[in-house]
Amino acid sequence: MNHYDVGIVGGGIIGQSIAYQLAKEGLAVVVFESNRIGKGATSAAAGMLGANSELENNDAFFSFAKESQRQYHKLCEELLQYSQINIQLVDNGMYKLALTDSEAESLQHTTKHHQAIEWHPKDIVLNNEPNVTNEIKGALYIPEDGHVSPIHVCAAFAKSASHFGATILENTPVQRIQKVANDEYRLSTPHANFTCEHVVVANGVWSNYFFNELGVQSGLKPVKGECFSFQSSEIHLERTLFFDHCYIVPKGDGRFVVGASMVENDWSTEPTLGGIQSLFEKVIPILPNIKSAKLLETWAGLRPQTDDGKPYIGKHPTEENLYFATGHYRNGILLAPKTGTMIRDFILKRTQQEEYVNAFSLDRKLVKMMR
Amino acid sequence: MNHYDVGIVGGGIIGQSIAYQLAKEGLAVVVFESNRIGKGATSAAAGMLGANSELENNDAFFSFAKESQRQYHKLCEELLQYSQINIQLVDNGMYKLALTDSEAESLQHTTKHHQAIEWHPKDIVLNNEPNVTNEIKGALYIPEDGHVSPIHVCAAFAKSASHFGATILENTPVQRIQKVANDEYRLSTPHANFTCEHVVVANGVWSNYFFNELGVQSGLKPVKGECFSFQSSEIHLERTLFFDHCYIVPKGDGRFVVGASMVENDWSTEPTLGGIQSLFEKVIPILPNIKSAKLLETWAGLRPQTDDGKPYIGKHPTEENLYFATGHYRNGILLAPKTGTMIRDFILKRTQQEEYVNAFSLDRKLVKMMR
Amino acid sequence: MNHYDVGIVGGGIIGQSIAYQLAKEGLAVVVFESNRIGKGATSAAAGMLGANSELENNDAFFSFAKESQRQYHKLCEELLQYSQINIQLVDNGMYKLALTDSEAESLQHTTKHHQAIEWHPKDIVLNNEPNVTNEIKGALYIPEDGHVSPIHVCAAFAKSASHFGATILENTPVQRIQKVANDEYRLSTPHANFTCEHVVVANGVWSNYFFNELGVQSGLKPVKGECFSFQSSEIHLERTLFFDHCYIVPKGDGRFVVGASMVENDWSTEPTLGGIQSLFEKVIPILPNIKSAKLLETWAGLRPQTDDGKPYIGKHPTEENLYFATGHYRNGILLAPKTGTMIRDFILKRTQQEEYVNAFSLDRKLVKMMR
Amino acid sequence: MNHYDVGIVGGGIIGQSIAYQLAKEGLAVVVFESNRIGKGATSAAAGMLGANSELENNDAFFSFAKESQRQYHKLCEELLQYSQINIQLVDNGMYKLALTDSEAESLQHTTKHHQAIEWHPKDIVLNNEPNVTNEIKGALYIPEDGHVSPIHVCAAFAKSASHFGATILENTPVQRIQKVANDEYRLSTPHANFTCEHVVVANGVWSNYFFNELGVQSGLKPVKGECFSFQSSEIHLERTLFFDHCYIVPKGDGRFVVGASMVENDWSTEPTLGGIQSLFEKVIPILPNIKSAKLLETWAGLRPQTDDGKPYIGKHPTEENLYFATGHYRNGILLAPKTGTMIRDFILKRTQQEEYVNAFSLDRKLVKMMR
Repeated sequence: MNHYDVGIVGGGIIGQSIAYQLAKEGLAVVVFESNRIGKGATSAAAGMLGANSELENNDAFFSFAKESQRQYHKLCEELLQYSQINIQLVDNGMYKLALTDSEAESLQHTTKHHQAIEWHPKDIVLNNEPNVTNEIKGALYIPEDGHVSPIHVCAAFAKSASHFGATILENTPVQRIQKVANDEYRLSTPHANFTCEHVVVANGVWSNYFFNELGVQSGLKPVKGECFSFQSSEIHLERTLFFDHCYIVPKGDGRFVVGASMVENDWSTEPTLGGIQSLFEKVIPILPNIKSAKLLETWAGLRPQTDDGKPYIGKHPTEENLYFATGHYRNGILLAPKTGTMIRDFILKRTQQEEYVNAFSLDRKLVKMMR
Repeated sequence: MNHYDVGIVGGGIIGQSIAYQLAKEGLAVVVFESNRIGKGATSAAAGMLGANSELENNDAFFSFAKESQRQYHKLCEELLQYSQINIQLVDNGMYKLALTDSEAESLQHTTKHHQAIEWHPKDIVLNNEPNVTNEIKGALYIPEDGHVSPIHVCAAFAKSASHFGATILENTPVQRIQKVANDEYRLSTPHANFTCEHVVVANGVWSNYFFNELGVQSGLKPVKGECFSFQSSEIHLERTLFFDHCYIVPKGDGRFVVGASMVENDWSTEPTLGGIQSLFEKVIPILPNIKSAKLLETWAGLRPQTDDGKPYIGKHPTEENLYFATGHYRNGILLAPKTGTMIRDFILKRTQQEEYVNAFSLDRKLVKMMR
Repeated sequence: MNHYDVGIVGGGIIGQSIAYQLAKEGLAVVVFESNRIGKGATSAAAGMLGANSELENNDAFFSFAKESQRQYHKLCEELLQYSQINIQLVDNGMYKLALTDSEAESLQHTTKHHQAIEWHPKDIVLNNEPNVTNEIKGALYIPEDGHVSPIHVCAAFAKSASHFGATILENTPVQRIQKVANDEYRLSTPHANFTCEHVVVANGVWSNYFFNELGVQSGLKPVKGECFSFQSSEIHLERTLFFDHCYIVPKGDGRFVVGASMVENDWSTEPTLGGIQSLFEKVIPILPNIKSAKLLETWAGLRPQTDDGKPYIGKHPTEENLYFATGHYRNGILLAPKTGTMIRDFILKRTQQEEYVNAFSLDRKLVKMMR
Repeated sequence: MNHYDVGIVGGGIIGQSIAYQLAKEGLAVVVFESNRIGKGATSAAAGMLGANSELENNDAFFSFAKESQRQYHKLCEELLQYSQINIQLVDNGMYKLALTDSEAESLQHTTKHHQAIEWHPKDIVLNNEPNVTNEIKGALYIPEDGHVSPIHVCAAFAKSASHFGATILENTPVQRIQKVANDEYRLSTPHANFTCEHVVVANGVWSNYFFNELGVQSGLKPVKGECFSFQSSEIHLERTLFFDHCYIVPKGDGRFVVGASMVENDWSTEPTLGGIQSLFEKVIPILPNIKSAKLLETWAGLRPQTDDGKPYIGKHPTEENLYFATGHYRNGILLAPKTGTMIRDFILKRTQQEEYVNAFSLDRKLVKMMR
């Protein structure tokens, strides 16, 4: 029979992280992926774990991100054991470059709040990363912001979840979620119907449909990110470079990944000529000898953005046993581990940190309005 | 505003053929494709126009198929004009091989009913196609069964439909179809909702969901077909070879396409090792020097099969302005042109050939039962 | 035994055209290709047959090019017959755009010398090709400059040559050519040695090595051309656009091919980031809505350029039975047919047009110096 | 000027290993690669480090292989540091399966000579690797035979060599090697000529040409190996499986690599239909549920085989400063590290282990004959 404890809609890194955590606890889990696992926003991401570089306030969101970042070290071993898949964790840190004096000042300022980061003046940066333009004014050195291979993480979560008995259904879009009894949801797919006690909607910006259908105003919208990769015998980078919402990540296979444009409300998933050109224009001044690099691939993905930039990780406002885990915007890879354990704790009714519950709840907008 | 005369669910060759015919008549048409146009069953097909080789009865279905086959000659010119895309029509005919004496007898028998085909004894076949094994007993020569490039046909329909004003939306899955007024349907997608006066469901086996949702027992099921392509300087074929539900099509770019396995109720769209192996086992005895050919690509697609093997091309049993065009099984490419004009004629309330209306109606099962 | 009448070094479009013409005459021909046929400069080309657009003087070279262009119409049928491969000849003509008033004047001027071309003022151009920027000043309309698919032409020549008994050896680099007897050359490869009565060196810029080795000062150098392809539902072009050494070719499969950069003395065959960016910068002002087009692929190839821009098609200055056919620069596809028949006529000792023999002879530089 | 201390012909894993070791010692090194680095036999290999599984005698060759295998552990760290590339070393060991009782007996026998391996009876094997057929009779467990990603190793060697100043020239085939002075060789390429004090020929089976040209009877011949990769959520393997010259390697990215056929004297580098079919036939009985696995890719490579199965790693019999490093057959990845240090020691005139010098010398055949 097609009955499971938990049905997870979406087989990207978020859905698989949740599946892994729940299957490990012994629950009967099914993951519905409309295409192939990890082939949406997950595979488009560069895999930066940019807790310090991406987030600017020292709030609950930041603590959550840092916890998630730290989980990767343990997960790396754990997933290797259960899945034989190496998630390619690289931990050489990141340079957040200052291109103007005012940026330099503002970046230097942030070192006061964060212990883990330090300011490197221009000469040190150029000494450490000689391929960077000498037009820079210095850089923030963030040792903790490493990177992983998102598609490997997703595959490792999925295979480990399978190891603990989870069912992963590819090519299986969920068309509709209906409550059919007090503790039963029906999920309709073109193949068959399934019933599940708990349902987690975790299919990125495409969760939008279920929000609407299930009566929640999410304000979720896509922000398309275009990327490219290159190879070069002349360019050597030890750290990720970050500047102007752009990054250059030196992957452990010799490729460099550059991303990402930000195109709002574009639902297409192919890179456009204009988008790639805009990246070229940003990157060439930073890494001048990139002009002779071999262009390898171009691609794009849709990041789900919420009104306030924070994800939704929580319960449906009124329906029992219905959860959402989406809206991770630029930080889906970084936040996947902790999102997995947080949804696990909701379903298993374990104690949660209240500040996280509030920060990522679906009705936080309502709460704000009532104040 | 998101309002159109006709909304077509499915951007494969069937949906695009319908869109082209309706846009040409001046209707405001929108096509919803969940992925990219033609990337489902369309791109998996070899493009055989096997009216004579695939169909065995001299019935309405056969006449319909022959009409559709003939339409391709005119379409080839027409689509080139509007889209600049060449659909790669090749018209060298087909050999349906007899591997045993009883097959030879049975194939010879069919020449009595069909004027367009003739029996070639073994020596003529081997003279015309010297790479074929001399184990064969002869072959049916079917001059009218040529082939096209399905993905080019689909792209040419789509571009020509655009030329006449149609809107083609890729990456836009329709999640739900609801009647919201007497002459208005609402189609929900993750991006936005659309209203349409007429709706055509034409997304192959995935139409299954809408049949169920709209209260029709379709009995539609997937029959997965696995294929591969090869290249060989040693093999020269002028005609398509057909045997044991298998074909070898010499494409106009020097590749040969071989298909297809038939795996029932498998919804996955990737070729399996076992499926490809089963094709190898069928093909090697027919074309012995294929063993030294270069293997190029392998792929798979899902053919939508109905209970009686005929497509559904017709109206919803009770709801006005709601049409289905699916269930074309192994013959989607062949039947696309005529399916397009038939749905056009339904929507424009033009006279139709009654035998086709009956043959492909959705309630033909009911009719049968009542007799 | 490894003995042949003619050994052809290079399995690109030039070598295969020669092989086809000679095999058809009954000679025993072998083609040596170091990689796979057509995978060098041939597959990198867009396939423009730009006799009128590329060549500016009304000289022997121009007549030769026009003859070669005309041969394509007959070849198209002929090669289809022998190889079943369709070379994708498209004959919709070309617009050579004037971007400034002085360009307009100069282009208008050329209509005086060429009957086959005419000047279209801006409004006619924009009416015919509405996607072109209205910044243009008009265009030369060149109806005879169509295009083919180079890789299909090359494959069709090769398969037709095989049909007439030629041997095509892929993965077989010729390392050395030595005269071993009065009418015998030895060609050494890593696999085996071959002897041939006649040798034709036709491997593009890599012929350079054999020129040096065989004592000819060729001055052959690579001019790397980088290209990309795109797809767009919004862009419709009927004619090829040509401007500033750049072209946009609407191929018969719905793709558009854009090329090509010109990087001298670069022997690498991968597209660089800087090269592709330079194409973007040229193309965007001409076709503004290209910015939203889907970027498909990028690639590069090496065009062999001679000192005076004309190919070498002729005999070794002193050695008997040794021929060169290379240096076709931007016009290899256009000139392949006539190069094939010209080398054939040398080897079969048929009468040749003296003006062509002189124009493309290897010692023309010497002749010039002596005058 | 184009002068270097050492010129290495061949940019595969062997050539790059040598380049790395010599560049690290401060020599001016140039590597000539006719295509792109690692795109020959290197990228075709599965990367098994099968010292115990591939070699059957406890001789000098075996010791050499074991030393090379051990070097990988240190290299893994070292190359990561210099190149940022992770070579994907996986160290879970291998099962060499016994399919018959006599195989079981013979494999059990080998445990007597090798401390590092042990016999696992059927039930233990099936417990550890439940996907293996229960038709097996047991297996040899070889904990030390892990695997790496060959293309990553090659890229890491190359980038580390560059780090120490080596020049890596892609797209640069060496056509000829000539001694032009007592301590100077000229290497001719289509681009330019180079002079080098020392020359190392390391381009796999294509070294054959230089052996002949330089007067050495090598008996080198290609043994083509065809491979494929697959993916499966149902199959979990912790160890490499080895049987009947075939292996199934569970890579750290979730793919499985299966190889390899052995086709003698075939110089083509594409997988044939017959070759892939022969692998299917071997693999299906061992891993029955592989039939439902997704077939991903197929490919082939040429392994250079010598008469006695051992590589040539040594000096030219008579010419000074001319070295060969080729003929590694099925063990190129395994032997690359130690080959690199051995050639380094020749060139730097360091002491070598005599047993290795003798085992891999070019004139060992002569020596044998003279005995």
